[in-house]
Amino acid sequence: MKVLITGGAGFLGQRLARELLARGTLKDANGTPQTITELVLFDVVRADDFGDRRVRVEVGDIAEHSVLERVIDAQTSSIFHLAAIVSGQAEADFDLGMRINLDAARLLLETCRQRGHAPRVLFTSSVAVYGGDLPDVVRNDTALNPQSSYGAQKAIAELLLNDYSRRGFVDGRVLRLPTISVRPGKPNAAASSFASGIVREPLNGEAAICPVAGSTRLWLLSPRKAIESLIAGLELDAGVLGNQRVLNLPGISVSVDEMVAALRDVAGDTVAARIVWAPDARVEKIVGSWPGRWDTSRAEQLGLSAERSFADVIRGYIEDERIQIR
Amino acid sequence: MKVLITGGAGFLGQRLARELLARGTLKDANGTPQTITELVLFDVVRADDFGDRRVRVEVGDIAEHSVLERVIDAQTSSIFHLAAIVSGQAEADFDLGMRINLDAARLLLETCRQRGHAPRVLFTSSVAVYGGDLPDVVRNDTALNPQSSYGAQKAIAELLLNDYSRRGFVDGRVLRLPTISVRPGKPNAAASSFASGIVREPLNGEAAICPVAGSTRLWLLSPRKAIESLIAGLELDAGVLGNQRVLNLPGISVSVDEMVAALRDVAGDTVAARIVWAPDARVEKIVGSWPGRWDTSRAEQLGLSAERSFADVIRGYIEDERIQIR
Repeated sequence: MKVLITGGAGFLGQRLARELLARGTLKDANGTPQTITELVLFDVVRADDFGDRRVRVEVGDIAEHSVLERVIDAQTSSIFHLAAIVSGQAEADFDLGMRINLDAARLLLETCRQRGHAPRVLFTSSVAVYGGDLPDVVRNDTALNPQSSYGAQKAIAELLLNDYSRRGFVDGRVLRLPTISVRPGKPNAAASSFASGIVREPLNGEAAICPVAGSTRLWLLSPRKAIESLIAGLELDAGVLGNQRVLNLPGISVSVDEMVAALRDVAGDTVAARIVWAPDARVEKIVGSWPGRWDTSRAEQLGLSAERSFADVIRGYIEDERIQIR
Repeated sequence: MKVLITGGAGFLGQRLARELLARGTLKDANGTPQTITELVLFDVVRADDFGDRRVRVEVGDIAEHSVLERVIDAQTSSIFHLAAIVSGQAEADFDLGMRINLDAARLLLETCRQRGHAPRVLFTSSVAVYGGDLPDVVRNDTALNPQSSYGAQKAIAELLLNDYSRRGFVDGRVLRLPTISVRPGKPNAAASSFASGIVREPLNGEAAICPVAGSTRLWLLSPRKAIESLIAGLELDAGVLGNQRVLNLPGISVSVDEMVAALRDVAGDTVAARIVWAPDARVEKIVGSWPGRWDTSRAEQLGLSAERSFADVIRGYIEDERIQIR
């Protein structure tokens, strides 16, 4: 089986690649595990190939048709489409967000349609498709009302994937991811970047700025569970998805104050005291429009799950990243 | 004030043009009536100019940027975007539907953005944005789940218009129209074409095929009320629309059996007997996915309304079209 990951050089892309290479197989549309013979890691920058012969690294612009034709052929049976412009950047640069989050997603679907073999295609979407007046718990049938260009672009990509699936051009599925926390590495241009930063930087002995109020409620998922969900999501039987290809993934609903309390419990007062509170209206507006929780019964029935507490998430991060608490 | 109607040669476009010319004014963003100095009727075929000097007729392909630049300038302060590929045709010709219902709508918004004057832009949308498992009465916060490419394209155009409005590129509003009945003229490629045909053809002394079961519930609005709503919708103050620019228009919820009974009441047994029942699975699938009723409290609070009964709609049609019952 030939597998493609777009955004293959990114944090989730690399972690997903490692997990797929370790597993060695992925279920096909009949539910039969197939050996992964080629894993294409495609991104705008060069991805790490882990020195694995099964990996083919491709670099290029995902909004170019000829580039997509190079990375998707009639043998590409499973596609994880992770490439995206994050929320803060898509708000700052409207044209770039439209080009990558909308045009490239459509071009990817269109390339699959032209190939004619209806591959499995997984899109990731986001809490940012919701906004405006929201119920405390967002239901599966709650209307989307994005309050950012990123959210609008993701919502449009969902509609496209649903229609391309309904018409049989692809066998698509969308996972709406909670905000991923704790991401290792550096802050990024996502409005939610602080949701990792306020744990990661203090654990690293550094100060971290928290740009939102402590009462702000977030809907979080760990990288471990995100990767597990991406693979399980791609392997889901199309029949159980029916006419609605979008799934809200399970997560943990926590306030920022509760996140800080969990950090204090796990790593102590000294670490938690490294958080600096400096409200930023631009970030608060975007993050405040996102739901703090959604109904995940459908995803749970399909076997997907999150951690039980944010303290567990922090412990998993410390373990994965081999962190020494100072 | 310079006004543009795309789809200006169509049935609603022509009727809207006549009404605007008769009124002579349209409210601006301050709620002040402004004299309509130019009304551009733009379509892929030549629109009737009614011999009125205020009318400028433009013919061209709405998916071409240079054409949109010809019909939208920095003085075009009000745009009614009615041009569309109807549901049945968008399902039969996917690429054409995408080109007109999605690409042209986006290009129109983009042209406005480039002009930089944030004109008022009204899009029409449809019951077809809904689908799948629906409550008996669709709420304002019910999720969209289109089951046709037309519905998906309209839902995407809604999201684009919302985001372009949020960013201040246009002052947009979307009216989700019920199925318009009774349309004069000929059947068209819309899956809902029969909703006019089963009244129009019998009143014209001709047989009409009804492709759906009598129990099928439709959500209807007369052309009179549709035109009234389009003008009121464009004149709505942006402040009352807030972060959600989409309005579900009031309509009448009737089953096809009730439509036939109303026709019998108004025009007699001989006329109603001209309906021939011939179920068509393709049409039933599309029409059956649409809601039979939605919550219209928001639109009603803003002063929009429908007729009280379908019999009233038929009487209005007979009056407007000066029909002699035979």
